[in-house]
Amino acid sequence: MPQKRRKRADERREDIMAAAERVFAERGYRAGSLAAIAEAVGISKQTLLHHFQTKEDLLVCVLERRDLRNLEIVADLGLTTEAMARLVDFNLDWRGLVHSYTVLSAESVAEDHPAHEFFTARYDRSRHELADNLRAEHGDRLPGGLTPEQAAPLIIAVNDGLQLQWLLNPRGVAISELFRAFLATLVPGEPSART
Amino acid sequence: MPQKRRKRADERREDIMAAAERVFAERGYRAGSLAAIAEAVGISKQTLLHHFQTKEDLLVCVLERRDLRNLEIVADLGLTTEAMARLVDFNLDWRGLVHSYTVLSAESVAEDHPAHEFFTARYDRSRHELADNLRAEHGDRLPGGLTPEQAAPLIIAVNDGLQLQWLLNPRGVAISELFRAFLATLVPGEPSART
Repeated sequence: MPQKRRKRADERREDIMAAAERVFAERGYRAGSLAAIAEAVGISKQTLLHHFQTKEDLLVCVLERRDLRNLEIVADLGLTTEAMARLVDFNLDWRGLVHSYTVLSAESVAEDHPAHEFFTARYDRSRHELADNLRAEHGDRLPGGLTPEQAAPLIIAVNDGLQLQWLLNPRGVAISELFRAFLATLVPGEPSART
Repeated sequence: MPQKRRKRADERREDIMAAAERVFAERGYRAGSLAAIAEAVGISKQTLLHHFQTKEDLLVCVLERRDLRNLEIVADLGLTTEAMARLVDFNLDWRGLVHSYTVLSAESVAEDHPAHEFFTARYDRSRHELADNLRAEHGDRLPGGLTPEQAAPLIIAVNDGLQLQWLLNPRGVAISELFRAFLATLVPGEPSART
């Protein structure tokens, strides 16, 4: 493929992912149709399917794209508890994307689901990377008493679990405050944590 | 309706829910068909639909039935952190039901989902009841420093979030040990909690 044509294809993929992120954010995964995404980009559904074979493929790419953006936020701050708390705040502006993420991660538990490998690998990687970073920051025990290998899956679980409660009742669940209160039990005395 | 006929209808509903629980546990919610549930009871799908109008209605009833059973476990022990840890252990024997619960609770975030009201009300009630019980047990602050109103949604979030990670990777996530380690940060020194 000539270089110029490849560049156009990359840009088109990027346009589609940006539109998909908006459509999934506004309507959720199930109601957000490929036709609506194609229309937002100004292409036919057939052209969209040339770039992404299925709706699930497209969502996995959108989620990977979001992960890369999250990693940039974390990289700027270092993977501190403060960075994790900011990620929680950041996601509050993207209710539809949190929604589609929550639905797809649950659906993906089925072994024949198209995103099963993505989510299994993503959680394994997240647990290991977070544990490694907590170990580099705090050693074998966090100040609150947990090991890095205990704290990492618990931090991820609290984030996912609070997002579900918040999606069901946005006014009834103060997700940022609760997440910081939780971090304060893991790392007492850190300024970001105590509410 | 004569008393004897009502009793038969109640028993039939109970048989259907028990079969549905097994089918959902074995195959998950999406793959567990009404036809398979009807066959397990030895009735036609039409007869099943006389008792439960939709598959979602049936699942909501199964979930409510599970909640009642969980409440019995909690009632025997009192709503202590030990009782909550035992509930986590208990659910490990029901992977398919945890799976269907995880999928349906995520799906139900959509306001037009048939289980939306069920899950919204269930989480609101769970948070309030758990906070009330923690307050009765520990007063205004748990030993680890959180208020009962902070601890309740966090305990529920950890349970849900760990179940998702465990469903994706059963061998990689020691859910019972992690849940007890988390409880130990909320209530340090309680014997059940430290791993």
